[in-house]
This record gives sequence, C-alpha cells and structure tokens, in this order.
Amino acid sequence: MSVKHMGKASVRFSAPPTILTTASVVGPKEGEGPLAQYFDEISDDMLFGQKTWEQAESEIVRKTIELAVQKANLTMPDINYIFAGDLLNQISGSTYGVRDLGCSYFGLFGACSAIGSGMSLGAMLIDGGFADYVVSSASSHFCGTEKTFRFPLELGTQRPPTSSWTVTGDGAVVLAKQGNGPYVTAVTTGAVVDMGVTDANCMGAAMAPAAADVIATHFKDLGLAPDYYDVIATGDLGSVGSALLVQLMQQEGFDISQVHTDCGLLIFDRETQDVDSGGSGCGCSAATFAGYFYRQLKEGSIRKMLFVPTGALHSVVTVQQGESIPAIAHAVAIES
Amino acid sequence: MSVKHMGKASVRFSAPPTILTTASVVGPKEGEGPLAQYFDEISDDMLFGQKTWEQAESEIVRKTIELAVQKANLTMPDINYIFAGDLLNQISGSTYGVRDLGCSYFGLFGACSAIGSGMSLGAMLIDGGFADYVVSSASSHFCGTEKTFRFPLELGTQRPPTSSWTVTGDGAVVLAKQGNGPYVTAVTTGAVVDMGVTDANCMGAAMAPAAADVIATHFKDLGLAPDYYDVIATGDLGSVGSALLVQLMQQEGFDISQVHTDCGLLIFDRETQDVDSGGSGCGCSAATFAGYFYRQLKEGSIRKMLFVPTGALHSVVTVQQGESIPAIAHAVAIES
Repeated sequence: MSVKHMGKASVRFSAPPTILTTASVVGPKEGEGPLAQYFDEISDDMLFGQKTWEQAESEIVRKTIELAVQKANLTMPDINYIFAGDLLNQISGSTYGVRDLGCSYFGLFGACSAIGSGMSLGAMLIDGGFADYVVSSASSHFCGTEKTFRFPLELGTQRPPTSSWTVTGDGAVVLAKQGNGPYVTAVTTGAVVDMGVTDANCMGAAMAPAAADVIATHFKDLGLAPDYYDVIATGDLGSVGSALLVQLMQQEGFDISQVHTDCGLLIFDRETQDVDSGGSGCGCSAATFAGYFYRQLKEGSIRKMLFVPTGALHSVVTVQQGESIPAIAHAVAIES
Repeated sequence: MSVKHMGKASVRFSAPPTILTTASVVGPKEGEGPLAQYFDEISDDMLFGQKTWEQAESEIVRKTIELAVQKANLTMPDINYIFAGDLLNQISGSTYGVRDLGCSYFGLFGACSAIGSGMSLGAMLIDGGFADYVVSSASSHFCGTEKTFRFPLELGTQRPPTSSWTVTGDGAVVLAKQGNGPYVTAVTTGAVVDMGVTDANCMGAAMAPAAADVIATHFKDLGLAPDYYDVIATGDLGSVGSALLVQLMQQEGFDISQVHTDCGLLIFDRETQDVDSGGSGCGCSAATFAGYFYRQLKEGSIRKMLFVPTGALHSVVTVQQGESIPAIAHAVAIES
C-alpha cells in the first residue's frame, strides 16, 4: 500500500502546444464498435499482413505514426522526438514499430497510461523550446497482450466479468509549437499508487485510486473544479473502475459524475461485443482520444477536456509472486 | 536494417542543469571489482534482504534513489519528477522501487540506455522551467536479467565469450536547476538503429552502430571533434562492441580511440572476474557514472565528458521469432 502524491505535480504551459493532427489504426473488433466512424484505418486482419502478433503490433505503430505525420503535411525528419509505449515485454511493439523511422526516440513504459506520458513530456519539450514537432504513440494488440499477461488464446480460458478486453490498435498525436488548437494547456504527472489490489483480472479497481489521485491533484494544484471541464475521460477503468473512481473522487470532495466518461466504456458496445468490464490496453485510450475525442475538440462540441490515461504496472512475475498491482495515471488538459 | 538518424537531434542548454548528487548501490561481484571504492553501498547479499530477485532489484532502486536525494539534503516532496528504467518485463524493478516514494514518475524503457534517457529528459524539464529537481535512476540485477532474457541460472548454461555479465546495481542522479556543477550542457537523443545482428549473446555488436550514430550526430550537430572531450564513455559495449565502435567512428571520419572508454570494461576485471566481454545491464552505465565518473568530474580530473549509455532493445519473443536486435544510445555532455 503506497503513499499518495506528496508534492505539486502540475505544469501550466505558457505557450500551449497544439495537437496538430492525430491518427488511429485499429483491428476488426474495434471496427465493429460504436467508434468505428472515427478511426482512420480499420483492418479486417488481426495480423495486419504480418506473420506474428508482435510484428502486427509494430506494423500498427509504424502505420499510425506515419499517417499522423503525413496528415500534418510533415515528413519524418521534421519530427524532433517520438515517444512510444506498449504492453509487450521490453515494449517491443514500439521499438520495432519506430525502427525504420530514423527519429530521436524515447521508449516509455506506463502500461495503458503511455499516451498520457508521451503527450505530457512532448508538450513540455515543445513549450520548453526543445522541439517544434513531437509524436506520441501508444499501442496494444489483443492477442499479443493475452499471450504476454494471461493465457495462450488457444486454451479458451473463461474470462471473469471484471476483466477487460485489450484493444488492438494505436493512437498517435502530433504535437506542434504552432497551430490552431486544440491546445495542451496543462499536465499533471501521476505518482505510482498501489492500494493493495492483487486481482490481475480486475485492473479497473487497481487503477481507479491512481486516477482519483491525479485528478484531485490536478484540481488542487490548478485551483479548478470538475465543472471546468466538459469531459473528464479516463483511460481504461471500464465499468468496475469507473464506478469506483466516482466514489473515490466523492471522498476527495469532488463530484465528477456529470462529466466523467471512460475510453474503455466508449470503444466497445458492452451489450453486444462480449468485452466484460470494457476495453483496455495502451491502444484503448490512445485510439479513442486520437479518433473520437480529437474530432470533437476540432469541431468544438468539446471545448475543455481532461484526458486521464490510466495504467496497471504489474508484470506476470510480480503477480505470481503475490505482489499487489501498482497503477499510475497522467492528466492532460486540452482546450480548443 | 534500419536507416540512421535523419534529423538534427541535439539540444544545447541555455542554463545547464547541475548534477547535484549521485548514488550507487551494487551487489557483491561489483564490490569485488576495480570500482569498489567509488560505490556508496555494496551488498554481500544478492537478495538485498528480500525474498525474490525482482524484489531485490526494487529494493536497490528504492535505496539508491532515497540515498541520492538524502545526499542532496532534499526530501522526496522536493523532487518534481523521477525517471527510472530497468530490464525486467514491464520494468517492474523501477515501478515497485518507486512505489512508496509518492513522486511524479515516468517509466522509461531504453534497456541499458535508460540512465541516458532519464538524464536527457530530466535536463530538458529543468532547463525548460518545469522542474527544480529531477531524479534519474537505472537498475539491473544479474539473476533477474538472466531469468528474463536467457536461461534459468540453475541450468548452469555455458556462456559464449561474446556475452556480457549483467551488473547488479543501480545508479541514480539528482539533477537540479542550481548548483556548482558538473553541468549537463547538451544532449543528443538517439534513434533506433538496427544493422541486422541477431545474436542475443553479442549485444556489443548490436549496440555499437547505435553508439556510433549518436556520437557522430552529436559532433556534427554541435560542431565538435572527439578531442573536445576528456572522456567519451559508452554504456556497455564491452570488448567486442568497443572495438567495433572505434572502427565505425573511423568510417564516419572521427578518431575516438584516444578518448573512448566503456563502462562495461571498467566495472569488472575481465582477467579475474570471468565476465567474458564485460559488464552490461542498465545498472552498469548508471552505477559506473554515478560512482566512478561523477567523483572524477567533481574532483576535476575529468572536465568534459560525453556519457553515452547504450541499449539493446530486443525481447525474448522477438529473438525467438528471428528478428534482429534494434539498439539505441543517447549522448549526454557533462562539463565541470
């Protein structure tokens, strides 16, 4: 059981970086879900033309980053830094995905919070004057993730109702020094929070305290109330974690029930798609933001959004050793 | 086979951050090596009082970060950001190591280049005005790494002469906005470079091209020649990779033979310690820098140093699938 965040953790940008473009590439199941119309590319092939699931994920990463850069009318040499992360061991999805891009690269591991880490660091590097253009990418692949964290798919293991369904896909954003918005106006960087949850099939419960901690810290640091935002969208808490988050925030003195939604609840239709608690995986929050939310920010139907990707930071080994599941969340404020 | 770095990748700081303090905690074998006198703590217990190798690594991380912060006369709430990375799956060494510290945290995966990523990002966040104090940590544990990447130790598998010996230890640095140096004056952020090496027992060969790429980029971007530096210290190329690096740099038109050394060649005595090509692991460059080089920079026997931690970014799965080994290196210029 860990302490909560102890210091001030928020940064407000003096010259807020623009999210110039985004791109999202997803798999067949996401293409059958309620957000299908928002994604740039939907593959009907879980292998994306590759031989292995791991190669498929790297192909998704490469495709998504190249597409985001192309949509910005840029080429790879214009990009100062790429941040990328995923769930595979040694984040090989990202590494092999960016291998041919010839660009300065920082690999991140924050599990499903990865897109938040990359957007936070990218915005700081731009506002700090170190970069004109930064790409942040986060990906996951259902089959690769099941193989890495749970059971071989071939076993057909039954899934408990608290489990989530890993999204196959990538969301990438191009952050830029100049542009017409939406802008990253502030970020709050989370600490590792571990409230003792040991059930790796209930990651929503493990991550909710980390999300509550970073959102409360964001409000306190910047003197904001929940109604400042049109939407507070957490990463992938799913149904179990979302309910917990609203309760935990209530205890902190903030009622977010009117503005909270969760990427894991949006990307699939839980009634018809058999995803139990909802979607998860680094690609869940990344593709939902890059597809669904970015379009609404651009169109003005959302004007102020707090994006809070959440990550469960356990490994198979730590779970087998009886350790609890540490979690983290990062809050990225976006205003148009 | 990937392209090399295509853009400008270097940043020179306008108000160079100070390396305020460092700390290093290592295991028994490192304590019998030639750098023993430079480390803050040497444990004679590979388990560091814990029950598993993974818990031992997290204990090393916690100890080292707390010691570095304490040596700086600071407490954890003073630290704005911790960057940490290691080699375990989902970098659990770092996650569980920082779990009780209650500090904003970014997990990095750059394999043995991790300390370089963290120092680069930390210096940018400080020079950019986002932080007063940043900690960068990188760790590895011989037993945990063998288990993760190679064979169970109990098998007693023979090691080829090109292999390296993973350092058990952590090196952490506290970067600060103000102080008396040594200063991080510039950083060059590497791209993923993959020249097709597939032998996971010869990581020096896989990483040498990445080191050559980032060092050459550093010289070209900043208009420097090798003799600008008293020392160019690569991460853990070992004997095989170090010889290759000098040749590759020759081909790029730079003779670094007079100033190059390698942390993997310094931390162990290859004549007597049976480490084959040399030391490796995130803890190798991190502890060698935090212990050995930092003291020399403080004392003035080294005045200008280019620190180039190198990382091999493969996973067991990618190697088993026949993929080659992508590598990365980051260059951090330090001047007193």
